[in-house]
Amino acid sequence: MPEFDIIRRYFQERTSPAPFVHVGIGDDAAVLAMNNDDELVVAVDTLVAGVHFPHSTEAFDIGYKALAVNLSDLAAMGATPAWMTLALTLPQADERWLSEFAEGLFSLAREFNVTLVGGDTTQGPLTISVQVGGVVSKGKALLRSGAHVDDVILVTGALGDAAYGLRLMQQHRKDIPDVCLERLNRPHPRVMAGQKLLGLATSCIDISDGFYSDLMHITTASQVGAIIELENLPLSRALSVDNMSYTDKYHLALAGGDDYELCFTVAEGQMQVAQTVLRELEIPCAVVGRITADQGIRLQSLETGDIKLDTLGYQHFS
Amino acid sequence: MPEFDIIRRYFQERTSPAPFVHVGIGDDAAVLAMNNDDELVVAVDTLVAGVHFPHSTEAFDIGYKALAVNLSDLAAMGATPAWMTLALTLPQADERWLSEFAEGLFSLAREFNVTLVGGDTTQGPLTISVQVGGVVSKGKALLRSGAHVDDVILVTGALGDAAYGLRLMQQHRKDIPDVCLERLNRPHPRVMAGQKLLGLATSCIDISDGFYSDLMHITTASQVGAIIELENLPLSRALSVDNMSYTDKYHLALAGGDDYELCFTVAEGQMQVAQTVLRELEIPCAVVGRITADQGIRLQSLETGDIKLDTLGYQHFS
Repeated sequence: MPEFDIIRRYFQERTSPAPFVHVGIGDDAAVLAMNNDDELVVAVDTLVAGVHFPHSTEAFDIGYKALAVNLSDLAAMGATPAWMTLALTLPQADERWLSEFAEGLFSLAREFNVTLVGGDTTQGPLTISVQVGGVVSKGKALLRSGAHVDDVILVTGALGDAAYGLRLMQQHRKDIPDVCLERLNRPHPRVMAGQKLLGLATSCIDISDGFYSDLMHITTASQVGAIIELENLPLSRALSVDNMSYTDKYHLALAGGDDYELCFTVAEGQMQVAQTVLRELEIPCAVVGRITADQGIRLQSLETGDIKLDTLGYQHFS
Repeated sequence: MPEFDIIRRYFQERTSPAPFVHVGIGDDAAVLAMNNDDELVVAVDTLVAGVHFPHSTEAFDIGYKALAVNLSDLAAMGATPAWMTLALTLPQADERWLSEFAEGLFSLAREFNVTLVGGDTTQGPLTISVQVGGVVSKGKALLRSGAHVDDVILVTGALGDAAYGLRLMQQHRKDIPDVCLERLNRPHPRVMAGQKLLGLATSCIDISDGFYSDLMHITTASQVGAIIELENLPLSRALSVDNMSYTDKYHLALAGGDDYELCFTVAEGQMQVAQTVLRELEIPCAVVGRITADQGIRLQSLETGDIKLDTLGYQHFS
């Protein structure tokens, strides 16, 4: 939704700078002065019923995902999660719904030692804003702006599953692959991966809007370009089914979004170290391309050479 | 809305404690470890269109108030505001609306040196969650829990204006006093007062739900009671109009809410110091009662003696 990018810029321009704001609007999270050793990392993300999840979504999954998408932002900064606040707007206080919602929220909170420190509960259309605070060693946060020419581009996990699951759900299909439902409703934020990449990755972002536009955030912030080998993008088996076209598959992977994987860059000499570190965490990791001096993102196919984005059904950025 | 109190407790009970959380859920804001000198104070408040403000409210006023109600929470802790994040859900990106909303938000942000450090803009029914971060000297934050028997209870400014303004608005009246509209739409958070009360006030809360129930938060947290001299409650001239009954007037003052004044306690020996400090800020301040060992809040009238709350149209807490 490009109009909402305009808004972001709108507010960004009016914001006065402050010495304690080390990284403000425009990265996955803000980085603020805290003490001699650490910085505070703060992110906020909102889920709106009917927009970010179907109205039929289970309360457990809503609670889980409301925190997961925020932890994914902290993961992209390499931060260690510490606390959250919850702004919960709901039509009525249904005890069973609340119990399940809290169960989902706290199941993930417990896993990552996140303490709920405050919140506000209001009546209205179902909307959940979670804000998370984390900690990162001073000056070490992974930013979008650090990619260098010739850095290698890597992606954790697999792309397109959540978007494929959502599509099948909207088609009222009964045979949705489990992996797609799991990835759609309970994305597991790459918190450990982010922390392990501190000092290794030169830039990092979490893939929420879609690989292509999130990588573009890196190339724009770093004032570089990128070349991507399409066939190297990690697709899960769910997307490798026979009846799905090449275009369709890569459209989901490039533009589907909701993946909550990390896309990051490392200097070529560090590539194997990064891969080893992630292998130890049992997190798959694929080399998908390289940073270039030429601005923009170039998509290449081993079979057909350069690919224009609009041939993959991509409108906005073509 | 008492059912929403249940929710708050619901989440509170499931939250795991953490050593860095000095004050968690249950005060005006959370107090978190930061460095050797200071603590981080974090609060979040949501405004929902049609619930917290009429749909006809000007965008400027919505932006202003979304920050004001949060700064009021920081004021009640004695914290110095520093940053905010904005989770803005809106039906469509209307440039004029956004411009005015931002104008209102940043007019207050500039006054109190609050920097916008992040946010999330989503599509959906108009809902605004602002989260603020502030700083307070270590161990000095004003809490709800510090009131002692025989402490004096004070209230800044005047009560009931905003609630009266809202009532007249709902009655489609054209002759709404300016002071009521001003207090309803642009409450001025008592940030300076809160800071000046550090080391003076034994407890403090901002009056958002209504004086009676907010004072009850202090007495409950401090495990004390209170006695209030009804006629000493500060009412503005707007509420002193001839045709308003005694019951009606004091109902608005006790239960109207949306005042964003501070209610605080001081030891009797410090009362004059506190009053002087506030006078220097040109903030009116009234002595309204006293903390007692007997639990509960006792309302007294100079004219009629003890008053039962339900005679003032108060149901929930009688």
